[in-house]
Amino acid sequence: MKFKASTFEERILSVQYQLRTQELKGAVISNAENIFYLSGHLIGEGSGPSILYIPAEGKAILTVSESEASLPGIEHFPGIIFPYKAKDSEDNSSALALSCFKNEYAEFVSLPLGIEAGTISFRSAEILGITTDRDWFEIDPTVSHMRMIKDADEIEHMRSVVKISDLGQQKAREVLEEGISEIELQAACRHVMEIEAGIPIEMKADVLFGSRTVLIGGPAGVAGRYRAVEGNLAIVDLLPRVEGYYADTTRTLWCGPKPLKKEKIMNDLFSVKAELEKMLKPGVEAAVLDGIARSKLSKVGSFPHHTGHGIGISSFEAPFITPDSHYVLEEGMTITLEPGVYFEEWGARIEDDYLITKHGFERLSESSEV
Amino acid sequence: MKFKASTFEERILSVQYQLRTQELKGAVISNAENIFYLSGHLIGEGSGPSILYIPAEGKAILTVSESEASLPGIEHFPGIIFPYKAKDSEDNSSALALSCFKNEYAEFVSLPLGIEAGTISFRSAEILGITTDRDWFEIDPTVSHMRMIKDADEIEHMRSVVKISDLGQQKAREVLEEGISEIELQAACRHVMEIEAGIPIEMKADVLFGSRTVLIGGPAGVAGRYRAVEGNLAIVDLLPRVEGYYADTTRTLWCGPKPLKKEKIMNDLFSVKAELEKMLKPGVEAAVLDGIARSKLSKVGSFPHHTGHGIGISSFEAPFITPDSHYVLEEGMTITLEPGVYFEEWGARIEDDYLITKHGFERLSESSEV
Repeated sequence: MKFKASTFEERILSVQYQLRTQELKGAVISNAENIFYLSGHLIGEGSGPSILYIPAEGKAILTVSESEASLPGIEHFPGIIFPYKAKDSEDNSSALALSCFKNEYAEFVSLPLGIEAGTISFRSAEILGITTDRDWFEIDPTVSHMRMIKDADEIEHMRSVVKISDLGQQKAREVLEEGISEIELQAACRHVMEIEAGIPIEMKADVLFGSRTVLIGGPAGVAGRYRAVEGNLAIVDLLPRVEGYYADTTRTLWCGPKPLKKEKIMNDLFSVKAELEKMLKPGVEAAVLDGIARSKLSKVGSFPHHTGHGIGISSFEAPFITPDSHYVLEEGMTITLEPGVYFEEWGARIEDDYLITKHGFERLSESSEV
Repeated sequence: MKFKASTFEERILSVQYQLRTQELKGAVISNAENIFYLSGHLIGEGSGPSILYIPAEGKAILTVSESEASLPGIEHFPGIIFPYKAKDSEDNSSALALSCFKNEYAEFVSLPLGIEAGTISFRSAEILGITTDRDWFEIDPTVSHMRMIKDADEIEHMRSVVKISDLGQQKAREVLEEGISEIELQAACRHVMEIEAGIPIEMKADVLFGSRTVLIGGPAGVAGRYRAVEGNLAIVDLLPRVEGYYADTTRTLWCGPKPLKKEKIMNDLFSVKAELEKMLKPGVEAAVLDGIARSKLSKVGSFPHHTGHGIGISSFEAPFITPDSHYVLEEGMTITLEPGVYFEEWGARIEDDYLITKHGFERLSESSEV
């Protein structure tokens, strides 16, 4: 599954329109996710650093290491591919890529430039000759805003990775039994997803059993050697990334028969999810969605995290569905909803992936009500 | 397996000595590998961005997101832990961590500062008030140089990850048979290593069959759906990372009986390896090692890559064993040697991991002669 060149052409034209509006001479894209979005070049394992230069008018220039200049798929990039010689040393940085580019195309690059100040390195900014505030303008919000709305190519990628994530969740249900450890369950899910993808995948995950379900994830909530015993809840939150796009689904499973109290809590989560789904359509404020989830869930137990977030090239991106979110749902957004509830001894969470459509939504993942 | 606080104390004292020598007021460490090396804080999945500040004298300050301030292991850091409130939004960057730190500790931070100009973002440098060349000095080489020589704690970590890598290689030998695909073999190796580690691991790999062995790795040489047929060679290059440290070993295996010509080539590789091993000891120039490998191997076929490199917190670090390397082997370095030879239709490579000892070397990995 590959992108069409027209896809990148449209995206680059869109950035160029913004650059001219802001009277910038061009933009240097250093954020790897934005480089992928605007060029189709996925910086992964073994890749050298890349830099994408978009002039206010004319062809964009993608600077990549020599070994990547002939990669299959790169021909979809509708601009100039400039290969630089990567070094077998510690100097192999995006600043090296940028300085090779600058040497070759010096006459193309003039200030003021759009840059991503949070990702471009200080050394790279020096190479560009940026010294005062008049030399640059922050371009990241322009690209991030474009990335929120998925086009047809991206929706196809999202469908594909979410389907792989469904397979991972199915595997989790199959293998969860007394005695299996968190890491064994997580590795089994990863294994089946990687084989299905047919290429190495990246994956983030929170797989936690029993009282560890209160950890919610993050660096503390990492799968370990803890083994399931009968009656344990298991939270299985899987985030595979395939061909540049993430899925993010969560299931709460049981080891053995479902205890009655926990069954009630799961039904509460499903009913909050159903209520949120009823509201999913263009025009709805993310903060309103969050408020409804928060008021319902806080009557059941504690709800210390967000209600959901955008997914795509990043596993966690705009729109953020949080109390102070300023985002409004639009057609073409792909988001997750993840109501959860946590007590002293255990927690439960479900998470599905959605596409916002013209008049409502389409759930991309299998239903969490399994 | 955890680090001792004294380990970090010594490393930080070493940086502070350098800072005073260079008349710098302190150093802002932004490179994630260097933060781990100097503080024991491993930035991984789910972690927020971190910043480590080392004043020329006094206690270092590690700025981490709130959820990480109480992680097990972080108590080994012999300085101040400053938690910042990470945001549920796109503003969640190392610049945010730095600006929270700067607000809290403004009176501690004055110029000139040591920075890692290739990794610190332009926005972060702005927050520090760096404007002219007199405001900063490049500190990365100081830390990289320290990292080349592994101390006792690190050698223990290296032994442990290399042992896990040996298990992965053993799995590869077990499962390689007619009909298995590259990605199936790679996923099987990863699975067994992750279960053994007992926690989620990172892994890079080049697993290639048949004529694809000429791809050598990098972004083009990624495992796919290609299936082994009898007579195929398979290159299995595995780089698991466990608790912050990488192993990197390569085996060339056969599907079915070993063809005679290929057997001869393997013996050539083993004899080059034996010759290089005989030279491994403190004082040997990396470029000399590379020269010997290159002259021997180029009589057999093509040898387009490096002869080896350092491994540790990075999978590819100094000393680099290349024709133009300026490095000299020292006691405590951990390196790989990876002679390979490539023809039109196939290639072969072996790679072992070594510790340079006082009078010679210790091979950390099982021998590639299997």
